[in-house]
Amino acid sequence: MFIAMNRFKVAKGSEEEFEKVWAERDSHLDEVAGFVEFRLLRGPEAEDHTLFASHTIWRDRDSFDAWTKSEAFRRAHAGAGTRKVLYLGHPQFEGFEVILEGR
Amino acid sequence: MFIAMNRFKVAKGSEEEFEKVWAERDSHLDEVAGFVEFRLLRGPEAEDHTLFASHTIWRDRDSFDAWTKSEAFRRAHAGAGTRKVLYLGHPQFEGFEVILEGR
Repeated sequence: MFIAMNRFKVAKGSEEEFEKVWAERDSHLDEVAGFVEFRLLRGPEAEDHTLFASHTIWRDRDSFDAWTKSEAFRRAHAGAGTRKVLYLGHPQFEGFEVILEGR
Repeated sequence: MFIAMNRFKVAKGSEEEFEKVWAERDSHLDEVAGFVEFRLLRGPEAEDHTLFASHTIWRDRDSFDAWTKSEAFRRAHAGAGTRKVLYLGHPQFEGFEVILEGR
């Protein structure tokens, strides 16, 4: 299994708007081959931002890679940037292989 | 739901030993109230280290906090540090609340 995480530093005061963007998005991920599960996570607060992470589980890295090259991916990201969310820097992508599980 | 992540920068060459520590540990997590799921993740490689993350899902933050104060927690971490794994810095803890799920 493969977990794709994107870490977002959302400026203080923008959190609600950021959550709205994700709640209203229409990703069609459930129609994509190899997609397992999606979660949006709210992490620790720093002085000037709150850390969020999108957290998507895939059957394997190849399924994720294929999705990033698909028309569905392009469509899912088409509206990005139109909302007034303030970020500190660019999102930071991290891909993880699951090497142990369960206990 | 609450996700507790610990991020470990494991020095190049120590990866195998690090994975062994986790594979052989005896956490008894499955007996702990509120525990849902555990995964060990291997993330991106930098020049001098490989990022790993332990990734534990809990029913809620309170269950996680209760576990960190328990005898089971003390026992699970008793053997830590006896293996010859080289780290770059201390593990970095991040707790996340799940705010969206599924699609």
